[in-house]
Amino acid sequence: MNKLLISLATVACIISAVSCGSGSGKVREDFVIASNAQRGQESPQYNSERRVRVRLYAPDANVKSIKLDIDAKLYDLKRNRYGFWAGESDPLDEGFHYYQLVVDGVNVPDPGSEYYYGSARWGSGVDIPSPDSELFEVQKVPQGQLRGTYYWSEEKQAMRHCFVYTPAEYDRNPDKHYPVLYLLPGGAENEYSWARQGRIAQIMDNLLAAGKCEPFLIVMDNCQLEDPWGWEEDYTSIMANDLIPMVDTTFRTISDRDHRAMAGLSYGGLQVKWSAFARPDIISYVGLFSGGTITAEEAAENPAFKDGMKLVFISFGETELVWPTFGIEEGTDPVQQTEDLKASGMNAHFYLSPRTHHEWLSWRRSMYEFAQMLFR
Amino acid sequence: MNKLLISLATVACIISAVSCGSGSGKVREDFVIASNAQRGQESPQYNSERRVRVRLYAPDANVKSIKLDIDAKLYDLKRNRYGFWAGESDPLDEGFHYYQLVVDGVNVPDPGSEYYYGSARWGSGVDIPSPDSELFEVQKVPQGQLRGTYYWSEEKQAMRHCFVYTPAEYDRNPDKHYPVLYLLPGGAENEYSWARQGRIAQIMDNLLAAGKCEPFLIVMDNCQLEDPWGWEEDYTSIMANDLIPMVDTTFRTISDRDHRAMAGLSYGGLQVKWSAFARPDIISYVGLFSGGTITAEEAAENPAFKDGMKLVFISFGETELVWPTFGIEEGTDPVQQTEDLKASGMNAHFYLSPRTHHEWLSWRRSMYEFAQMLFR
Repeated sequence: MNKLLISLATVACIISAVSCGSGSGKVREDFVIASNAQRGQESPQYNSERRVRVRLYAPDANVKSIKLDIDAKLYDLKRNRYGFWAGESDPLDEGFHYYQLVVDGVNVPDPGSEYYYGSARWGSGVDIPSPDSELFEVQKVPQGQLRGTYYWSEEKQAMRHCFVYTPAEYDRNPDKHYPVLYLLPGGAENEYSWARQGRIAQIMDNLLAAGKCEPFLIVMDNCQLEDPWGWEEDYTSIMANDLIPMVDTTFRTISDRDHRAMAGLSYGGLQVKWSAFARPDIISYVGLFSGGTITAEEAAENPAFKDGMKLVFISFGETELVWPTFGIEEGTDPVQQTEDLKASGMNAHFYLSPRTHHEWLSWRRSMYEFAQMLFR
Repeated sequence: MNKLLISLATVACIISAVSCGSGSGKVREDFVIASNAQRGQESPQYNSERRVRVRLYAPDANVKSIKLDIDAKLYDLKRNRYGFWAGESDPLDEGFHYYQLVVDGVNVPDPGSEYYYGSARWGSGVDIPSPDSELFEVQKVPQGQLRGTYYWSEEKQAMRHCFVYTPAEYDRNPDKHYPVLYLLPGGAENEYSWARQGRIAQIMDNLLAAGKCEPFLIVMDNCQLEDPWGWEEDYTSIMANDLIPMVDTTFRTISDRDHRAMAGLSYGGLQVKWSAFARPDIISYVGLFSGGTITAEEAAENPAFKDGMKLVFISFGETELVWPTFGIEEGTDPVQQTEDLKASGMNAHFYLSPRTHHEWLSWRRSMYEFAQMLFR
């Protein structure tokens, strides 16, 4: 555990060590407005080289520099004669990227973009399409609902906010009861993260319309309890004692361990591991998305976990599968660890997201794969 | 109609004519962090004089000026030795205020605040408490749900996003059917506006817990169809042909005009008037919140409207009730117009929100009053 947290700190340092670039090379002028632009706005954009361009109207700006800060690199914006400022990044990975603007040294969101919660703040984000983008987009198929609600936490003596996804068929089958997945965000994200950048309703609506998964409910809660970063807090008891009882009395669930799954990304995956080891009596499927691994040795030490889990799903982005990254200790190989877990008799599954790093396209794809293996 | 639109343009000019201030007078140092600050952030704040303070950490800023832009006035922020920038406004009205920062002439959201959609963008907002604030806050009472979903618009040949509020009891009464209120935002706002700054779930949950209103569903849609400003677009047919059928097949509604209401604020109130005049066969309660008036003469020209409406609810903020303001023509008096409407035989009701202008506290209070008069 300590070793893991040290490697986390290392990653955080590497990520925050910002170098400075200038959108090198000749830029292909085929930019289109990204899905993340606010309605009627023209920023952010991306082109066929997967560069991101931001664009800002500030005719009266009395400013020395505006920079685009994306993927740990800074890019200068230039002003044109009409008062528009624009600048673009180097080619980036497909998928979702958080970014911000730096106006004379002040970090601010891009006023043109939609906002997403990550790094403990609401900030700008941009999606660069991938070949499988349509899986994560709103299609003309039956639409589920993302239900925001508050619940009372006896432990915290406070109201907490969560989202519950219900599939389109839920309201048409008043006598049917459903399994439930409890789904956690990453560190310094919150309950909005899966709902917004995670595209959870689109993933599920599209899978269900294609007949590729069983219908189930998804509860999205925030596992950072006391502050936005929330490291090493005990989320398990809140879930077990406050959240699950609320969900089981408010929704038509099948309220037993055989019909309850839990998954999380990055730090949320670590929380899932802690919860599943502590309470294998209430969970029977687990998913760790870029959230570390579970070794055969760890499983062997916890017979209730080892005998009780119907599925252990481990996933990473292809390009993050090097040390140091979240949850992988130096000299260990999560693919081999998953094989060892299988050899020990557990139903373990490893998924690798092509060409993606420690980011949301890895996690959307992980969810897309994981969903198809649940409650079968 | 034309005269009204001219007065709107006048108001817009007045609102955008920004003067420059400096947080005049001695400032009382009893600031507290506003409910609109992001978790873990310290901006915005307000004090007992109802001044708003923003606070920004930018130790490396190479910037000439940062200003707070609120209620059509600019206030300078000052830097302290630790790299924090802060500045405060003059005393403002109670209630919700949109605001932004201006960094060397570039308009950006406050990175510390939650974001709210208004003026055709996601931007910062701050609530200054009023004596009735608790009506609009999350209380430990049974909680309804705010359900985000998409529906297919045959007319637009596109998916559209809306919210549906369901009261806490909805999921516990699988055989009960409910009346529906269709609720519109103001110009350049969207379907999120009532859900977020409108505090609709809190208003309803608290009213229902106090036994002060009937349970009903509330559908929040965006009446700006083609662009974020959307003036004079025809929303009625989208609502009648696409939205109402979706709601009536997805939710347990009582799908007749006697159990259907429509309300809106500002420009949304104008849309409500147009819809109710065009389709009195599908609506029987209307609410115009700072959204103009309906005269006895107009009603007399439309017998289906005059005979069919069970309630016409007109409201304004006390300090906006002067000309020019939205929907009030020079020389007319909406209080007297409502009296005339009553005298003509209609059930009309006028509500005035104490000490508020053309802003969200007026509309939260209007909703609080209107809700108690519906479906009785």
